[in-house]
Order: sequence, then C-alpha cells, then structure tokens
Amino acid sequence: MKGLIERLTEELTRLPGIGRKTAQRLAYFILAMPEEEAKAIARAIVDVKEKARFCKRCFNITEQELCHICTDPGRDHTRICVVEEPSNVQVIERTNQYRGLYHVLLGALSPIDGVTPDRLKIQELKERVAQGGIEEVIIATNPNTKGEMTAQYIKELLSPFGIRISRIAYGLPMGGDIEYADEVTLSKALEGRRIIS
Amino acid sequence: MKGLIERLTEELTRLPGIGRKTAQRLAYFILAMPEEEAKAIARAIVDVKEKARFCKRCFNITEQELCHICTDPGRDHTRICVVEEPSNVQVIERTNQYRGLYHVLLGALSPIDGVTPDRLKIQELKERVAQGGIEEVIIATNPNTKGEMTAQYIKELLSPFGIRISRIAYGLPMGGDIEYADEVTLSKALEGRRIIS
Repeated sequence: MKGLIERLTEELTRLPGIGRKTAQRLAYFILAMPEEEAKAIARAIVDVKEKARFCKRCFNITEQELCHICTDPGRDHTRICVVEEPSNVQVIERTNQYRGLYHVLLGALSPIDGVTPDRLKIQELKERVAQGGIEEVIIATNPNTKGEMTAQYIKELLSPFGIRISRIAYGLPMGGDIEYADEVTLSKALEGRRIIS
Repeated sequence: MKGLIERLTEELTRLPGIGRKTAQRLAYFILAMPEEEAKAIARAIVDVKEKARFCKRCFNITEQELCHICTDPGRDHTRICVVEEPSNVQVIERTNQYRGLYHVLLGALSPIDGVTPDRLKIQELKERVAQGGIEEVIIATNPNTKGEMTAQYIKELLSPFGIRISRIAYGLPMGGDIEYADEVTLSKALEGRRIIS
C-alpha cells in the first residue's frame, strides 16, 4: 500500500521545477498546514480546471463569458495591448501602468512548428479593430524571433486601418548592468534612446 | 472580482519556497494540465489532510491504526531506528539498507523552546523497549545540538535495559570534498575512521 504522503509527493512532482525532494518537503508542509488552508489550495486547483475559460473577446482567462478587463467601463477601450499568453496580461497588469484592453494571441507565429496565423487569435484581433473605436494597438509580443515575426505580421495586417500601431520598447533591463548586456540589447537601447533634457 | 488564476497563485504562495512568480508559473501550468492530473493533485492534498494520522506504535504517518512498516511481518522486529520526524523515515527507507522498525519522536529536545521529554514520544519508546524483544535501538536524530541532546537523553533512559544502543555515523557526505568540509565534520570523520585492509 502506498502511503498518503508518498502519493502526494508523487502528484506534486508532476509540476514543473518540483523535484522529488521539494515535493516531499511540500507534502509534509501540507500535512502540517491548517486543514482549511490546505483544502483552499485543492479547491483553487479544481476551480481553475472546472471554471476557467477564454474571454470571448480578448482570450484572457476568465470565469465569465467576458473577462473583468473587457467589462470594466473604467478602462480605456480605445487601446488594445497584444500579448502572446494570458500570463503576460497579469505581468503587465502588475505594473499598474496600463489602463487599456488586451488581446491574447494564445501563442506566437512559428511556421516551423506549424503555428500559422490561423492557429492564433489574429483574425479575432483584426475583427476587433475593424469594428472601430480603437485608436492604438500596442504589440507586446516577446522580443525574440517568434514574437518579432508575430509583431511584424500584425503590423502589416492592421496598417490598412490607419490606427496607431506601437511596439513595446527594447532596452536595458532596470537594475541591470551595461557590463553584462548583450550587444543586441545594447544596440536596441542606443537606438531607442530618449532625450531627457 | 479576483480571477481564478490569481486565486490559485495566491493559494500556492502559502507553500514554502514558492514565491509569487513560481506560483504564477505553476498556476498556468495547472491550467494547461489534463484535468484528471490536476484533480489528482487536489485529491492527494485533501486525502492527506483527511486521512493521515500517526501510527499508534511508532508515530509514523499512516492511514490505518498501525503503519505499513509496523505491520510488515517481513521486517526485523528486533531493531528500532529512532528518528525525529516522519519525513526522516521516508529518507531512510529510500536507502533500502534498513529492514527494522522505526520510532518517530515528533521532534527533538529543546528545553529553551519548551520541548521537554514529555512533549516527545520518548516515554512510548521506553515502553516499546520494556515490552521486550528489542535487541538494538539505532538513534538517528539529527547531528545538531538538539538531536545530540535527544540522543544522549535516550541513551541514558534505555541503558538499564541492557540492549545495544547505537548512533548513526558522522562523517564526510558522499560526493563531497574534504576541501569544503567543516572542521567538526572532519574531526568526526577521522574519529570514526574504519580499518579497510
């Protein structure tokens, strides 16, 4: 008979970055936790699996038909920030800098992996823009090959609409050190320099 | 309204060593997992909280009255290995070296923290030995101040029974480097040297 702790340990090792030892430590921690807290974790896991779906408009994760950002009248509905994944929405939200809407592509173009435009929510983005009322689309796909390709594709797709299309800035990460910056980032940072006086 | 992912992220940060970023990464991973696997994790958490209890004899974690080690007729019932925590049992079991029984103290002596002998399962160990049939007690408490104090206390408590009482060996950790060993470990390793020719 396999023990309860062994079973929980095994289940936890399914998670990324959780090896056998960490899983065991977590299992014993859970064993010692107040019952209500432990069950709240379990419930949150089940809820995510049972209730999460994509927002019909922006493809962020939500429990409703439309997510809490799309339905918020206090947000700027003339701006759409395009990201690859729902997790990117959360990251940008945490900056408290952006008050517009989002559009989650659910991936990035990668023809070699079979990810063509029709596999992403690109057509849906075009339709949102075509409906009017949008003044700016900020493309916040990743600064790597796939993300750049996707940004380029979207830029060309949306240019007929005559709206402002922007790309998030490249540059040195805050708290970083020029000494350790790679040359590509450094040249992008120079290229994107801003007048400060 | 707080989102499902945000809630799961928050719940996961209750776990030790899981910061906000790791929790978020795990939450999105769980979101993408097959439903059955995610629910198996949740179920294992709930089961541990609802079904786990201490073995009446050795205080290991079990679902039954007695744990699977205490009830295994194939084990050597003349030996008891004394450990501080149930997790230590699992660690020793994984060596596949030991075939005897265990006794979990559920802690180590620490008078300064109010952990006196009556707060641990020490009396219960004495009773097991007093019932007879035990030939050796191996003390595997931690090699630190509390563990040493506990080992010493148990040694004195059990010496009247005239059985063999042993302490696990101190020495260099396997795969380690003498260069990096602290002096206490190194002198213990020298002291405990064994003739090999």
